[in-house]
Amino acid sequence: MFPDKITLTDFPTEDLSQDQIDILSEAARKCRAMAVTMTTVAGSGHPAGSLSSMEMYIMTYSVADLSPFNYKSRDRDYVLVSHGHTSPGAYSALSCYGFVDPWDVMAHFRQAGSPFQGHVEREVPGIDWGTGNLGQGLSAGVGYALSQKSRGYDGRVFVLSSDGEQTKGQIAEARRIAVKQGLSNLTVLIDYNHIQISGRTEEIMQADLRLLWEADGWDVLECDGHSFRDIYSSLLLASRSELPTVILCHTIMGKGVSFMENIPDYHGKAVSGELYLQALKELGEDPAILEKAVDLRSGSLPPGIKLSMPAINLVSPDPVDYPSDVKTDNRSAFGKALSDVGVFNYKVPGRTPILVFDCDLASSVKTLSFAESCPEWFIQAGIQEHSVATVAGAASAGGVVSLWADFGVFGLCEAYNQQRLNDINNSNLKLVLTHVGLDVGEDGMTHQCIDYVGLLRNTFGWKLVVPADPNQTDRITRWTICERGNICLAMGRSKTEIITDEDDTPCFSGKYAFTYGRYDLVRNGTCGAILAMGSMFPKAFKAWQVLKNRGLEVKLYNVSCPLEVDVDSLKEAASTGAILTCEDHNVNSGMGSIVAAKMASLGLHARIGSMGVHRYGTSGASAEVFEHMGLDVDDIVLQMQLLLR
Amino acid sequence: MFPDKITLTDFPTEDLSQDQIDILSEAARKCRAMAVTMTTVAGSGHPAGSLSSMEMYIMTYSVADLSPFNYKSRDRDYVLVSHGHTSPGAYSALSCYGFVDPWDVMAHFRQAGSPFQGHVEREVPGIDWGTGNLGQGLSAGVGYALSQKSRGYDGRVFVLSSDGEQTKGQIAEARRIAVKQGLSNLTVLIDYNHIQISGRTEEIMQADLRLLWEADGWDVLECDGHSFRDIYSSLLLASRSELPTVILCHTIMGKGVSFMENIPDYHGKAVSGELYLQALKELGEDPAILEKAVDLRSGSLPPGIKLSMPAINLVSPDPVDYPSDVKTDNRSAFGKALSDVGVFNYKVPGRTPILVFDCDLASSVKTLSFAESCPEWFIQAGIQEHSVATVAGAASAGGVVSLWADFGVFGLCEAYNQQRLNDINNSNLKLVLTHVGLDVGEDGMTHQCIDYVGLLRNTFGWKLVVPADPNQTDRITRWTICERGNICLAMGRSKTEIITDEDDTPCFSGKYAFTYGRYDLVRNGTCGAILAMGSMFPKAFKAWQVLKNRGLEVKLYNVSCPLEVDVDSLKEAASTGAILTCEDHNVNSGMGSIVAAKMASLGLHARIGSMGVHRYGTSGASAEVFEHMGLDVDDIVLQMQLLLR
Repeated sequence: MFPDKITLTDFPTEDLSQDQIDILSEAARKCRAMAVTMTTVAGSGHPAGSLSSMEMYIMTYSVADLSPFNYKSRDRDYVLVSHGHTSPGAYSALSCYGFVDPWDVMAHFRQAGSPFQGHVEREVPGIDWGTGNLGQGLSAGVGYALSQKSRGYDGRVFVLSSDGEQTKGQIAEARRIAVKQGLSNLTVLIDYNHIQISGRTEEIMQADLRLLWEADGWDVLECDGHSFRDIYSSLLLASRSELPTVILCHTIMGKGVSFMENIPDYHGKAVSGELYLQALKELGEDPAILEKAVDLRSGSLPPGIKLSMPAINLVSPDPVDYPSDVKTDNRSAFGKALSDVGVFNYKVPGRTPILVFDCDLASSVKTLSFAESCPEWFIQAGIQEHSVATVAGAASAGGVVSLWADFGVFGLCEAYNQQRLNDINNSNLKLVLTHVGLDVGEDGMTHQCIDYVGLLRNTFGWKLVVPADPNQTDRITRWTICERGNICLAMGRSKTEIITDEDDTPCFSGKYAFTYGRYDLVRNGTCGAILAMGSMFPKAFKAWQVLKNRGLEVKLYNVSCPLEVDVDSLKEAASTGAILTCEDHNVNSGMGSIVAAKMASLGLHARIGSMGVHRYGTSGASAEVFEHMGLDVDDIVLQMQLLLR
Repeated sequence: MFPDKITLTDFPTEDLSQDQIDILSEAARKCRAMAVTMTTVAGSGHPAGSLSSMEMYIMTYSVADLSPFNYKSRDRDYVLVSHGHTSPGAYSALSCYGFVDPWDVMAHFRQAGSPFQGHVEREVPGIDWGTGNLGQGLSAGVGYALSQKSRGYDGRVFVLSSDGEQTKGQIAEARRIAVKQGLSNLTVLIDYNHIQISGRTEEIMQADLRLLWEADGWDVLECDGHSFRDIYSSLLLASRSELPTVILCHTIMGKGVSFMENIPDYHGKAVSGELYLQALKELGEDPAILEKAVDLRSGSLPPGIKLSMPAINLVSPDPVDYPSDVKTDNRSAFGKALSDVGVFNYKVPGRTPILVFDCDLASSVKTLSFAESCPEWFIQAGIQEHSVATVAGAASAGGVVSLWADFGVFGLCEAYNQQRLNDINNSNLKLVLTHVGLDVGEDGMTHQCIDYVGLLRNTFGWKLVVPADPNQTDRITRWTICERGNICLAMGRSKTEIITDEDDTPCFSGKYAFTYGRYDLVRNGTCGAILAMGSMFPKAFKAWQVLKNRGLEVKLYNVSCPLEVDVDSLKEAASTGAILTCEDHNVNSGMGSIVAAKMASLGLHARIGSMGVHRYGTSGASAEVFEHMGLDVDDIVLQMQLLLR
């Protein structure tokens, strides 16, 4: 009943046989009935686009080397669904090939707690990237294809997409990365039905798809998107192309249900009652499946899968110890550590590739040394941050370690939503921001990333680490590269002192080991406490001495993990009666506000002073800017004195 | 000495005279010396790109109807600098035409507190949009051109751009909007020198500029970007084209200083010492200007200008009163109020146009009625959120009221950086998010905007308003449209009850007037306080009654302005000893965390409970989702009881 897989890697025939076509067509008929039924059960969803994409789905999952038996493996083909709202099509097709139970899908589509969300998510086996926010799928496909290539695995990646989303700029960016990286293993199928929610695509926003894809260097094929024979031959041609290939699949929205065909209203509307019966009749299926599915809906929910993050197999050579008389910048310490780890693992059999992504800033973000030592692991992706964020995230989900180094405003402010989606997709991205806070050189307010804490605290999975000096940067860089999960390593641009103990020994070298979430008590005292982060820590370090000279001994903590509150340390700090937080971050959304909120919720009482950025910054040499913005050593001293008055 | 303006609107000649060319060339020579000098004074900056764009700058500011005498007016031409790092070129050219003093620029470039930031900002007269984050300028140009068109003003808009940034997807989006809107008054000049920071553009990321711009329907011209005659004739041709026109200006990076020419290293590096002398010698200028500029640097800083936001002249008809037995959704109330205000002002002489932008979601975000009543004020911009955010922002800076209605994840998560830049640019955008929190229908986690408070609290200028019911939505919509500044109006998707006083009178109708920043005390009590926001307010309203029935009378506040703390109300709430905050927002970054942090900083003591979202949400009917995520009426009752135990 269900079609056999016809994977392209298995010596495919040039044409489908009539038997194969008959079986696929019967599957499409049943899947259409499923898609309509599940939206009716849920009372919402996108039936017409699902019907439009149905042959694309069934044919793609057929030819892809992706099955219920290998979807947990890294070494296989990948299928990305970019038009995530056509989930009924995807789920139905997956049920054809045994990934999911068709009754589970029909009964529990869009039900709270079910894995079958309105837009596809990775909880469903066979779904490789959660989408729904449009324009993301091609970037994810580029990421997986890059990952395969870097791991030396000869697989294919398929992206299913829609015509409506083709106007998203991120798609154009991804096209160019695919061509530059020579991803001939990448095939895109576009459901070209000329209809989006508000009407005809040509009227909503004209885009000449053939011209645009050709202009960026892709092979462009066209086919009848409802003919299995046609789609199959196009996929076969694509698999033999030396370029990444896009197939414009000419389709009819709502195909198979006469009253839905070409009617934009059914883009996002389920049918019920008589219309449901008519739809099922046209599809030759017994409408009783609706009742059964509705009955099953009150039963227990099917579990979603939790894909484990691919293991990382990397060895870090010994850390670098920067002695107390060295003055360098954290980004150079990062670059050195990255290069060390890179060289140590480059092309060693069994080691996880580290793909380092750049958006035309390698010399500033200090990845040039890595690029020179590990050229095949370095991806120059141009000024295309939206796509790079997703490409890097998806590549890491495909089994490499992705590290994207950029300025804070580009890697995070510009690509915030992509980083949120990386979080949802449980990727394994290392986002290194070398220019955060006010310490970005003379570039001025547009370049001052004074919101990185405030942005990442909106996510549930991202870790954020802000080192205090080159020694700590070195340790944290090694930890970041080798640790699973999405981790952001953020630092300022300027040269900075080595932080030392009172006997002038560097604090963060030698036996120091980084522990995520812990505040570092760098100086002790009793009459108050300073909690300082990032570029403000060295200033607070100096201020501590001034305060001490004035007879005010306070505790001084380095807060390198601002998203976490080290509760024991905070209690200790609060016990002094006065806490001053110092950051070159928006004072309303940064570390200080996290600390203050935690104090209130814990019922800890102390006078609180919050130093931070109160307006968009000025442009000038770093020291000048900090002074101008009221965040210099003297300011810390003054604020602490005021707090202790 | 300085060139006269040769504005295109003043019956231009077909060719420049040799005299004119001589004067312009002499200006270019002096400007090059200025650009080199100011970067040397500052010790940083981007000299080579500035030299490359110099003729483009001087010619464009010559032909544009933009002068020191009219830059404060709305009715003039606009010039947008997209490659904001070539600010030395822009500032030098502006000094040619008297916008700024050349010595001010040379002395105070990139100095803390000076308006001459590293990347252009609107503090400098003649600069119409602060950029530096690449890929933004064309969208800003489209916005200004749209604004001119909507105001019936027959002016021109010029965008100066670079080849490196052409790979940004946002540019492709903006191209399409320009063509769809028929913006023949828009001309783009691309500095096509084939060099970006990391090397040759073709090697960093290939993009065939002619093909790409033609594919999107633009007129493409090419010229020698160092020939005034050539640029002038291209500008003249462009001004007569019926399409938006791009001019590929073939240039040499570093033009005029032999050792900088075509050397990527000088993209972002200033010269000093002997190299400076050599540069000035080649440019035929006395190097003593350096010393003078350095001397002046320690003097007083030139003031920046503060462009006032264009006035809004709109009249709102009487508000709608929704009686207590009505059940509708806030987005419909918004749509009704918008349409009311639209119809009342549409094409009335002297009234400010309201441009309503849509990204293919008009029927969901309830702007269809406005679109039907005020068709020329409705802009269907397709699925192109990055560009739309900037287009809408810039249009508002050009003198219209821009209102962009979208889902939360698209209007804010996806376009966060663009909204940050709108804030920096002091625009006048009304961002209406109809699907925020968990209340987004069955779409699932990718569509749940549980971070809108957490995102906007990173900005300094944005106001955020989250109404509790249709009556409040009606009032707030009218306020939002008529109030200056960037304002975000956020709401959930579902139908909701009318909030009433204890005598069943609607709270937010009749004489109620919205005041930004005030908490609404909707029910009184003494043993605790609930602060609830948005979609959680109606649930808290029901919970209040349950608690009352159990003998627990608490204060119930509606927090419609989560970025502001109403300190008097908070003190009053804290005086009860127990505060429970309720929101369908990430609990770590939302209203509750703002309240908690404020309590700590004010030294207010009370037990605090924070209800919110602790993980990415599930997909289902709204009521189901709230229940599943622990945010139902019963949960509020339980949490309040636990807090009061």
